[in-house]
Amino acid sequence: MSFNFPIRVYYEDTDAGGIVYHANYLKFCERARTEYLRDLGIEQDAYLEHNIAFVVKSMDIDFKIAAKFNEQLLVKTKIVHIKRASVEFEQTIINKNEQLVFSAKVQVACVNTKVMKPSAIPDLILGVLK
Amino acid sequence: MSFNFPIRVYYEDTDAGGIVYHANYLKFCERARTEYLRDLGIEQDAYLEHNIAFVVKSMDIDFKIAAKFNEQLLVKTKIVHIKRASVEFEQTIINKNEQLVFSAKVQVACVNTKVMKPSAIPDLILGVLK
Amino acid sequence: MSFNFPIRVYYEDTDAGGIVYHANYLKFCERARTEYLRDLGIEQDAYLEHNIAFVVKSMDIDFKIAAKFNEQLLVKTKIVHIKRASVEFEQTIINKNEQLVFSAKVQVACVNTKVMKPSAIPDLILGVLK
Amino acid sequence: MSFNFPIRVYYEDTDAGGIVYHANYLKFCERARTEYLRDLGIEQDAYLEHNIAFVVKSMDIDFKIAAKFNEQLLVKTKIVHIKRASVEFEQTIINKNEQLVFSAKVQVACVNTKVMKPSAIPDLILGVLK
Repeated sequence: MSFNFPIRVYYEDTDAGGIVYHANYLKFCERARTEYLRDLGIEQDAYLEHNIAFVVKSMDIDFKIAAKFNEQLLVKTKIVHIKRASVEFEQTIINKNEQLVFSAKVQVACVNTKVMKPSAIPDLILGVLK
Repeated sequence: MSFNFPIRVYYEDTDAGGIVYHANYLKFCERARTEYLRDLGIEQDAYLEHNIAFVVKSMDIDFKIAAKFNEQLLVKTKIVHIKRASVEFEQTIINKNEQLVFSAKVQVACVNTKVMKPSAIPDLILGVLK
Repeated sequence: MSFNFPIRVYYEDTDAGGIVYHANYLKFCERARTEYLRDLGIEQDAYLEHNIAFVVKSMDIDFKIAAKFNEQLLVKTKIVHIKRASVEFEQTIINKNEQLVFSAKVQVACVNTKVMKPSAIPDLILGVLK
Repeated sequence: MSFNFPIRVYYEDTDAGGIVYHANYLKFCERARTEYLRDLGIEQDAYLEHNIAFVVKSMDIDFKIAAKFNEQLLVKTKIVHIKRASVEFEQTIINKNEQLVFSAKVQVACVNTKVMKPSAIPDLILGVLK
């Protein structure tokens, strides 16, 4: 029961080693989390205008098989734990042969961007996530 | 009479073609403009807090010789024209053999980030630039 | 008669000014050119393996209206000129209100990545582009 | 006994939340590891030409205090473990007030980029690292 989001690897994502630059998988995951929330009806720009944003607090990452230029990938996103001011996601990326490219546990906190302090997840979002 | 700023090419800057990804030269140029202003005593974060930012309005770019992973480059920055709400820069990037890697004319406008409208360059900055 | 490719603005694309970082529009354009070629049946990774790549040689860019986090954009790509070893594209990006966000003329050269020299566009691609 | 490398936060590193985009700290760490190796006399481009590269295999990351546009940061890098085909680094990033911004354990493997398989660390590098 995961949310699946496709990613195409463009030149911008690769490096001179001929593979996806490792930090860019984190971008793929963030796009997928954004689309997951959108799919649930949550548009983050509306919250950002009220100084509410979701910020990554910790990640535990395994880079498995390197992806290459032009590959079609799939990001699979699952919520594993919801707390008052944070959410834990499990995200994996697989390639066309269903091989595991990347996997991560991601702790995301809700923060007030004005003071950069933790903030309770708005009820509307909390309700939808549960 | 240009301001010279060194750049090292890291993996993050390259792509699967084995060379610097073209859009990343624009980052190198923006770093150099930032350091140029800092060298003149202008710290942009102070202005950003007052909703004043410099925004690129147009660029005329030639990509000459491709730079590779680990190369040491030099960005040369010159102001060629100053107007009430914009500045024109000429920026070139050369490699260790003094070959031309990149050249650009860059129009930068001063804007109020709250309304995203042109704003007169603050007098303090204008004075320093002239 | 342009090729249209949608782009969503994610956090990764924005900067502290609250808008899309200027260099990232070049990434959007490169994604769109890649998808245009794919739409015509051309997969660039197959060519890259034979050391054939398309490299941007020059760009003439206007940054019009700044795009913001979470905006839905559309990249419109048109080929305006085809030569033996290069192609000229016209690319514009518009927002949901059909306002012009970005426009550029882009000269792309076909190169042999082993020697980084211009190379005639492979006949198969040339035929399809025309 | 760590290797210290300074990083300045530019617009390119930030996002619309007003802080450094989380994935970009991984770039800062990779720059620091590259400079650490260079400081020890190891230039990675020479190895890449022989299809030897260092690839990140896993990371355990804590994002502590958000860094902002224009901040001056310091990346501290330490080798904590060396094996035949991999190295474990400990990397922390601190701000001007010596507050902890970011910390990570990073497993880096030596790979043959032609076959993307683990490869023994070249003796020359191994000797220097120990």
